[in-house]
Amino acid sequence: MTKNTPICALFSAGDAAWPDYAAALPPAFAAQGLTVDVSRDHAPETVDYIIAAPNGPVQDFAPFTRCKAVLNLWAGVEDIATNKTLTQPLARMVDPGLTDGMVEWVVGHTMRHHLGIDDHIHGQDGIWRAAFPPLAQERPVTILGLGALGAACAKMLTALNFPVTGWSRSQKDIVNVTCLSGNDGLRDALTDAEIVVLLLPLTDATTNILNAEKLALLVDGAFIINPGRGPLIDDVALLKALDRNVAHATLDVFRTEPLPKSHAFWDHPKITVTPHIASTTRASTAALCIAENIRRGEDGLPFMHLVDRSKGY
Amino acid sequence: MTKNTPICALFSAGDAAWPDYAAALPPAFAAQGLTVDVSRDHAPETVDYIIAAPNGPVQDFAPFTRCKAVLNLWAGVEDIATNKTLTQPLARMVDPGLTDGMVEWVVGHTMRHHLGIDDHIHGQDGIWRAAFPPLAQERPVTILGLGALGAACAKMLTALNFPVTGWSRSQKDIVNVTCLSGNDGLRDALTDAEIVVLLLPLTDATTNILNAEKLALLVDGAFIINPGRGPLIDDVALLKALDRNVAHATLDVFRTEPLPKSHAFWDHPKITVTPHIASTTRASTAALCIAENIRRGEDGLPFMHLVDRSKGY
Ligand SMILES: NC(=O)c1ccc[n+]([C@@H]2O[C@H](COP(=O)([O-])OP(=O)(O)OC[C@H]3O[C@@H](n4cnc5c(N)ncnc54)[C@H](OP(=O)(O)O)[C@@H]3O)[C@@H](O)[C@H]2O)c1
Ligand SMILES: NC(=O)c1ccc[n+]([C@@H]2O[C@H](COP(=O)([O-])OP(=O)(O)OC[C@H]3O[C@@H](n4cnc5c(N)ncnc54)[C@H](OP(=O)(O)O)[C@@H]3O)[C@@H](O)[C@H]2O)c1
Repeated sequence: MTKNTPICALFSAGDAAWPDYAAALPPAFAAQGLTVDVSRDHAPETVDYIIAAPNGPVQDFAPFTRCKAVLNLWAGVEDIATNKTLTQPLARMVDPGLTDGMVEWVVGHTMRHHLGIDDHIHGQDGIWRAAFPPLAQERPVTILGLGALGAACAKMLTALNFPVTGWSRSQKDIVNVTCLSGNDGLRDALTDAEIVVLLLPLTDATTNILNAEKLALLVDGAFIINPGRGPLIDDVALLKALDRNVAHATLDVFRTEPLPKSHAFWDHPKITVTPHIASTTRASTAALCIAENIRRGEDGLPFMHLVDRSKGY
Repeated sequence: MTKNTPICALFSAGDAAWPDYAAALPPAFAAQGLTVDVSRDHAPETVDYIIAAPNGPVQDFAPFTRCKAVLNLWAGVEDIATNKTLTQPLARMVDPGLTDGMVEWVVGHTMRHHLGIDDHIHGQDGIWRAAFPPLAQERPVTILGLGALGAACAKMLTALNFPVTGWSRSQKDIVNVTCLSGNDGLRDALTDAEIVVLLLPLTDATTNILNAEKLALLVDGAFIINPGRGPLIDDVALLKALDRNVAHATLDVFRTEPLPKSHAFWDHPKITVTPHIASTTRASTAALCIAENIRRGEDGLPFMHLVDRSKGY
């Protein structure tokens, strides 16, 4: 390939995403000094990089014989990392816009439960019920997962004075956050937690991680906030826990999405369903991440945010 | 007075407040090296300091002839600063616990409106409405009042990425906050604001400051959050604005409290009433502020947080 041959990038995601990326990618490539022909229609054997959503049109990656990397548009990779035809390096999305949105959503719902805002919204009945919530410093929050998103949420909740405990596979060290790991660590992280936020990836090891036994560790009146993935929680155990110690669950993700209209979660007075909107990849900032990874590939540098297939995330 | 005569402090607040302060004040006095006889029952002419809530039993301050200062238990002083019998120095409450609680309440309701959380709470009907809010960086917030509470809220909202504009009587300089003052400043602060938070004291100059003309400056879909004082807003103009450009008002304070059951605000679909619970003075931290001010009085130092009667706050 001479310097003058443009790099060939295939965009494989839903139709709705294309206009934003068609606008955001060219300036991002230019800023990296790259000449890239990005299109939704390239012959497989000509493609250097695939910019892919897990639910995009390309599901068979085998014909893309010269493809140097698949650059995922989402933070969650469980539906693409398990694709047996995908043998190329796979990078996941770490997008500052996605992180900011998640921090905002998690802070918003944490404060909502902390302040008891629902009681006010539902209690507009003319009765003056003056009661003060405790201060954040008296409300322990636990975050499962301390990756790009979990660590950012932990930092912001710490700035808001919550005592924050975080749990991850490898041991972390984050200022003012009690960092735990391992099975005993999970038990300690959940015991006494009043608000639990799930920001783990979905893998074999994390499926049903919040099961009946773990849910029983939470204090009476605990809140669960799940912007991670639906199968992280055992749904049947959750419904039972809502009759016992768990006061409310705010769930953004589900085993089946959209959550079917008939699903028990919609009607449940102690569950708030949000339609997988906690955060989204924003084209303007995600394009910078994609362009930087292509530049690294062209320069022979290691890709950022590579998925470890043995771990599944 | 010899060194061995204890300082005489009268506690004048509602019955409910006494147990917490009876527990919190003695260690706070001891930490300042003070011997204070604090009680709810001292002869007026023996009293050195009055620790007072505006609605406390003492309403005639004239008999307290040797009283060196009245130490207010609340941040708001409009009901005590206007008491003609009160000629002693009057200090208001600046309590870190009060400030923390207010920051949490303001952040909670700002995030609630920013994320459209009410739509989710009210929309548990089985319809999957996936739509993403903008990022905080695209949501301008204006805070009227940049005192102890307003400035603390401004700093936290800035940390959450909101573009924050603040307005006060004297010109301020706060990192990352657009600080405005004066009448033109108020106009600029309200124009284009999507969320407006009121943290002004109630004085002649601030009564009805958010009137019809000012409300008309707000963008379509604006949110109002009032934890300041009820009369800061012209109620009739607010009801009209809710039919025009204002999407929702969350009000913690009212002209009459408790807000009467028959008041139009309770029923209004675009108003959330909260019962003056945005924040409260916490005895454990407020006691430190009171003890420090008494120590300053005994040492002949100027009192902290003195109310300027000419300004009314
Ligand atoms: N609802 C939404 O809108 C939305 C949007 C974006 C993302 N998400 C979800 O959020 C998840 C997290 O994203 P991220 O970018 O923060 O991912 P990430 O950077 O890969 O972080 C994952 C974290 O989980 C920990 N972890 C993984 N497996 C574990 C195990 N078996 N035991 C203990 N800890 C484990 C990791 O530990 P190590 O640090 O030790 O590896 C890491 O701290 C995504 O996978 C996705 O499912 C949801
Ligand atoms: N809802 C609740 O639970 C609750 C709890 C506590 C307090 N509050 C309310 O919150 C208010 C604020 O408390 P704070 O401790 O922050 O008071 P503060 O420290 O005295 O601050 C007041 C701020 O308002 C500004 N201001 C006053 N009059 C003004 C005018 N005419 N034009 C422009 N700016 C003006 C002041 O400007 P300068 O800085 O130039 O003086 C200052 O920035 C209290 O007065 C009380 O009403 C409510």
